[in-house]
Amino acid sequence: MSGSTFGKAFQITTWGESHGKALGVVIQGCPSGIELNEEILQKALDKRKPGQGSAASTKRKEPDIPEILSGVFEGKTTGTPISIMIVNQDAKSRDYSKIAEIFRPGHGDITYQAKYGIRDYRGGGRASARETAARVAAGAVAEAFLKQYGISVETCTLEIGGVGIKAGNINGGGEVINQNQTALDREFAKTNYLECPDPEALLLMEKRIEEVKKEGDSLGGVVEITAKNVPAGLGDPVFDKLDADIAKALMSIGAVKAVEIGAGCDAAKMTGFENNDQILPEPSRFEFDTSSAPIIPAKRPPSSTSAAESIKRARFETNNSGGILAGISNGDDIIARVHVKPIPSILKEQMTVDINGNPCPISTQGRHDICAIPRINPVCKAMVYLVIADHILRQSCYTTLKNSFCETI
Amino acid sequence: MSGSTFGKAFQITTWGESHGKALGVVIQGCPSGIELNEEILQKALDKRKPGQGSAASTKRKEPDIPEILSGVFEGKTTGTPISIMIVNQDAKSRDYSKIAEIFRPGHGDITYQAKYGIRDYRGGGRASARETAARVAAGAVAEAFLKQYGISVETCTLEIGGVGIKAGNINGGGEVINQNQTALDREFAKTNYLECPDPEALLLMEKRIEEVKKEGDSLGGVVEITAKNVPAGLGDPVFDKLDADIAKALMSIGAVKAVEIGAGCDAAKMTGFENNDQILPEPSRFEFDTSSAPIIPAKRPPSSTSAAESIKRARFETNNSGGILAGISNGDDIIARVHVKPIPSILKEQMTVDINGNPCPISTQGRHDICAIPRINPVCKAMVYLVIADHILRQSCYTTLKNSFCETI
Amino acid sequence: MSGSTFGKAFQITTWGESHGKALGVVIQGCPSGIELNEEILQKALDKRKPGQGSAASTKRKEPDIPEILSGVFEGKTTGTPISIMIVNQDAKSRDYSKIAEIFRPGHGDITYQAKYGIRDYRGGGRASARETAARVAAGAVAEAFLKQYGISVETCTLEIGGVGIKAGNINGGGEVINQNQTALDREFAKTNYLECPDPEALLLMEKRIEEVKKEGDSLGGVVEITAKNVPAGLGDPVFDKLDADIAKALMSIGAVKAVEIGAGCDAAKMTGFENNDQILPEPSRFEFDTSSAPIIPAKRPPSSTSAAESIKRARFETNNSGGILAGISNGDDIIARVHVKPIPSILKEQMTVDINGNPCPISTQGRHDICAIPRINPVCKAMVYLVIADHILRQSCYTTLKNSFCETI
Amino acid sequence: MSGSTFGKAFQITTWGESHGKALGVVIQGCPSGIELNEEILQKALDKRKPGQGSAASTKRKEPDIPEILSGVFEGKTTGTPISIMIVNQDAKSRDYSKIAEIFRPGHGDITYQAKYGIRDYRGGGRASARETAARVAAGAVAEAFLKQYGISVETCTLEIGGVGIKAGNINGGGEVINQNQTALDREFAKTNYLECPDPEALLLMEKRIEEVKKEGDSLGGVVEITAKNVPAGLGDPVFDKLDADIAKALMSIGAVKAVEIGAGCDAAKMTGFENNDQILPEPSRFEFDTSSAPIIPAKRPPSSTSAAESIKRARFETNNSGGILAGISNGDDIIARVHVKPIPSILKEQMTVDINGNPCPISTQGRHDICAIPRINPVCKAMVYLVIADHILRQSCYTTLKNSFCETI
Repeated sequence: MSGSTFGKAFQITTWGESHGKALGVVIQGCPSGIELNEEILQKALDKRKPGQGSAASTKRKEPDIPEILSGVFEGKTTGTPISIMIVNQDAKSRDYSKIAEIFRPGHGDITYQAKYGIRDYRGGGRASARETAARVAAGAVAEAFLKQYGISVETCTLEIGGVGIKAGNINGGGEVINQNQTALDREFAKTNYLECPDPEALLLMEKRIEEVKKEGDSLGGVVEITAKNVPAGLGDPVFDKLDADIAKALMSIGAVKAVEIGAGCDAAKMTGFENNDQILPEPSRFEFDTSSAPIIPAKRPPSSTSAAESIKRARFETNNSGGILAGISNGDDIIARVHVKPIPSILKEQMTVDINGNPCPISTQGRHDICAIPRINPVCKAMVYLVIADHILRQSCYTTLKNSFCETI
Repeated sequence: MSGSTFGKAFQITTWGESHGKALGVVIQGCPSGIELNEEILQKALDKRKPGQGSAASTKRKEPDIPEILSGVFEGKTTGTPISIMIVNQDAKSRDYSKIAEIFRPGHGDITYQAKYGIRDYRGGGRASARETAARVAAGAVAEAFLKQYGISVETCTLEIGGVGIKAGNINGGGEVINQNQTALDREFAKTNYLECPDPEALLLMEKRIEEVKKEGDSLGGVVEITAKNVPAGLGDPVFDKLDADIAKALMSIGAVKAVEIGAGCDAAKMTGFENNDQILPEPSRFEFDTSSAPIIPAKRPPSSTSAAESIKRARFETNNSGGILAGISNGDDIIARVHVKPIPSILKEQMTVDINGNPCPISTQGRHDICAIPRINPVCKAMVYLVIADHILRQSCYTTLKNSFCETI
Repeated sequence: MSGSTFGKAFQITTWGESHGKALGVVIQGCPSGIELNEEILQKALDKRKPGQGSAASTKRKEPDIPEILSGVFEGKTTGTPISIMIVNQDAKSRDYSKIAEIFRPGHGDITYQAKYGIRDYRGGGRASARETAARVAAGAVAEAFLKQYGISVETCTLEIGGVGIKAGNINGGGEVINQNQTALDREFAKTNYLECPDPEALLLMEKRIEEVKKEGDSLGGVVEITAKNVPAGLGDPVFDKLDADIAKALMSIGAVKAVEIGAGCDAAKMTGFENNDQILPEPSRFEFDTSSAPIIPAKRPPSSTSAAESIKRARFETNNSGGILAGISNGDDIIARVHVKPIPSILKEQMTVDINGNPCPISTQGRHDICAIPRINPVCKAMVYLVIADHILRQSCYTTLKNSFCETI
Repeated sequence: MSGSTFGKAFQITTWGESHGKALGVVIQGCPSGIELNEEILQKALDKRKPGQGSAASTKRKEPDIPEILSGVFEGKTTGTPISIMIVNQDAKSRDYSKIAEIFRPGHGDITYQAKYGIRDYRGGGRASARETAARVAAGAVAEAFLKQYGISVETCTLEIGGVGIKAGNINGGGEVINQNQTALDREFAKTNYLECPDPEALLLMEKRIEEVKKEGDSLGGVVEITAKNVPAGLGDPVFDKLDADIAKALMSIGAVKAVEIGAGCDAAKMTGFENNDQILPEPSRFEFDTSSAPIIPAKRPPSSTSAAESIKRARFETNNSGGILAGISNGDDIIARVHVKPIPSILKEQMTVDINGNPCPISTQGRHDICAIPRINPVCKAMVYLVIADHILRQSCYTTLKNSFCETI
């Protein structure tokens, strides 16, 4: 069916295998008049590029050069489908020939074979993480579209291989991200390739990566994604809730095994009184503890004149909800976290079977990342941009009439 | 747009407000010839019924009586849309009149107002958990359809208010579920209304609920959902991965704040070697530790003759993947966990604002659950049934040709 | 799959069998704040009611009383799904028991059996024209939504049983509809139950119906649908062109066998010079032949500020295009025609087979229309309203930025 | 939104402008294991190629060379998205620069400007008929998939510029196509570039084309599309009826202004007795007039074991239905006709306005076809292949259970 399509109004369809001729994406629904060119895409793709000096990522060169084939005229989008292609340049098919008949543990080899009865085994084919390059390109288009609303999405690494920031587990210490002291850390996160906001944790993470690399093993981690300036009113209950769509968007990234929104797993341990974000009148915002996050004065989309207005006289004392109530954005920061499994391709010998069902030990040589983080961070960012772009457009459909609440308040 | 629709092939569309005339669901794509009647639906809905003797749930009577209005003829589905309606019988609108102009913390009052500029404030309107009755009815239809494949979905409560089974946190102790000793516990879970598999934890959970009730507060918890006998090959990469669709399905349930698949959050702490489920030849399955889960001999859908066959000579040593590799089912149990926030309606006084932006303390009196668990359990179950039914049908589209792997092995 | 769903942004899902408990529709995407109540729906449904004095339609009473079950609060839409139900009150199942094992010629009995292996044979089940009551109810909601733009859809009968208006075939004489003299006729069409704009033709049509009724046979005809005040810019190339969606909408009505847009079949006989609608500057419109249709000053949707503006300085000399160029509305009247086959249920004996393949003559007794016209007219109208409502909302997604043409002109 | 996507199960998304870098299509849902390569596509695209010796078509060289970028491995489809690209090689942008500020009559220039506020004016941009190359490529994939069922789609030209076969209008003489003598003609149609089945009409058509060419004008025509061996049971009531989807598919082709199914417009003039296709028992088929079309022993899809079986003991005396009853295929030939408007680009001077609203005469020089036929024929064919492929897959979803009718008969 249509499993390679995501979004309803801002809709992307990706295609391509790891070692095929090319991979790409077709974007439908992007409004006309948005400035777009290949440099904008290249900048986003470079963030996903491997081999940026870290021990965590592969040394292989994988220059992802995007080409815009349609939908852009004289530097602006025309409203017609935008087709973006990235030619596969560094495909060394010979490296993969020996795995043609073996199912690698932790990979989709065995399930693709079960589903389709045939698979492009070269580099994992469609199941390869290379597929995410198309997501990043599409996310850059969504970002270009959302720029006019002041919406931005950021990522931050909270944990690698069990080493968390503030020496704590994300479940115990993750919430500091939303307090003032880590607002500073966020700047630090931008200065290091692991996107770690905590200088001490960064050292420990690097050490852990080196260790595990020597053992021929790999690591996972936790990434937090924050969307800022998202107007209130986005999300389409009851199934296309904003958090449900974010959960799907993030869980669809190959290595992600868990998604949290706001307080996430911790919410299950709190009482209602602790977890509820109490609502305060806006005029009094400065009388309260300044360490709590004031509501962002959400920039509203032009066509959605009253959505954000409607709650401009209120703010939330805390943000356990992650900016989403009953599936609809509340104007606060959207906060999500993903738990990423370790890279399944490891040097360490593992047991598996070949295509004939015979036991067959496997040790993956070659150019592989130790940890999906930080290369997965721009992919998470792209997916959240795509969800928001989709829901901004979807919300345009609802707001053709004046909003009564905004008029009375 | 179409936010109240879920699924592509087995597709449901729900409608209805908490205190409107009725609520319901239209199901499209259910194959013809499935036995279906109102008793089957009633049985499923009764599991979601409140007031079953627990302190956790409201005393209010809410007799959800389903009526099949179309799509069934002489006790069998006809292939045309199945319309199911549940009339709202116990709607005490007067109880809710005072909240017409107040935004309850933790609820969707403020975001619905922001989105639509108007809201049916009676009992939360569309944002009420009553909406999930339609999901449960639809899930019962999916269950009836999936019966022929031997597929069943079960739920189990792992934690309430921070009290976990085996006295451990779910992240620390949850995995025992997949070992032999808790296979016994699963039977115990069926005997108590909280669906707790651990007799000791059950007592502590009940105590915690009583405590919190006295404080006028509420609790959350963790529920595990397990789908058995799911054939290999289900899931539609790259966005409609089986785990991505499950994540969306579960996160779309109002109170859910986090979704895990398989090892979930724990996967982020493991190394690749620890997390990868090694693949063993099927003939030797009995030579290994019998406490590990043997691969379920997946019953395949008639129209998908070779999908499950393809891996019948292999099994996985562990199930950290939660039965899903690269977004496609591998024939093992599908395992997901949801982290549920505490009920936001509490007696304890909270701060909020009214529709004019004025501060306004609120204390929710009346008939409210202390904890969404165990009433949320059948909703989770229904959503997973719906995802599997959808993907079974979607897989039928792919399997018109003989599967090559199945022929060679 | 989802064959009972129509539209992407303004989306309806219908359900129900001819002689089931009820039939209905769920509408998603209707913006909030629209005035809606059961009287509005009743008024539309009454137009589809049989037995209005004509020999053409059945005498059976079929009181279609709509009930709004959700999505409306205090007389206004809330933005959540609108569920409308019509209870089947006059279902005489016994009348149909004898056709349980016979396939009626011209009906879907045999194909439903082939497709589903089971069918609700009572009154045609899902294949009955009763299904269109749900469309009419949904169309009335679309009409209520479109009222704010001044958009209206009208129908007119051009031909019945080969008797055309102006004593001509529709292909020869249909075009007069768009000239001044038939603008007067359109008023006459509103005064007679056949919606015929030509007094002379009306008499001949009635005579033809009486004749054929005596022979135990039935008739078809041609209906023209005109949508006025549709803003320029609607339609989503290349597949969801406005005319393509209208063609699907109208062809999905059971008895329709051909759909024309604008000049339609005649266009195939013209030269390019004859068929092209030349474009004239707006200021000079009064200098031209006043019998040609001046461009309607299209009312634009609030959220689509510049779409219609863009061509406000131009008009088309003729309207062979039917108001649609390259799949996008041009601000002119949208014109479509449907060719309706005769009612297949006739008293005259026909040959068929029973469910065992044995020959079996059939003569349909009972309450049946002689001609689908004029009861099909409100159904056509409803479908065109639904298409326009869908595309108005879809266009909202594109128009978040200022439109350059509108600024220069 | 998603206007460039067609189909639900066999789903295509096209992209590209007339004079952009390339155009193409992404196909989702094509089952794995289908033989596919660029030669298959090239063969289909060559049928759409201009300049094949006819006066009707442009002399410009437009070598459409398809490149498969993904979804095919070792000559077979893998079940993942198939991306096909056709590079625009002969784009002479300078030819079109002068129309940048003028709206050509009969073209989408003015409506694209109204809709998007920006347009790629080079060669009509997205609105160009070049877009249909992507449809033809996709149709060739659908054809390759449907080959296993013996399904084939053919086209035949019935009329050009008012010159019809058998010297008659299509409405008067078109039905001969379905009788024996024109079965012979169909072979003749394959021998001439206009695909005309009537040698006499061919000469007249050619003469008419030459005449009109000299006048600097253009012509339209009528094409019949016939799908053979389509199994009974395809089509998804009530909106995604097989005829409704075919109507949309064909009307979405730029120049098409009317679509007929089966008897089409003529059905509206018949009585019920004349129009109904009477049903005869299969064993007696040879006792009847052999000039009437015996029901094709429909080859059924493997996964739809009983659908076609169910009517194997019946046949239809005539085929006024065009092989579709109540929106579902009945096993007979599927017959559709399109009425194509004349090419709007003509040498003859026409009136129009420029982007500033000033009057501006226009005469289109350069390489343009006189008549869309026969280049439109392979596009029609492709669209019908796509609809059938989609519904074959969709039907797979319904047929997981034994079909009761097939068992009793």
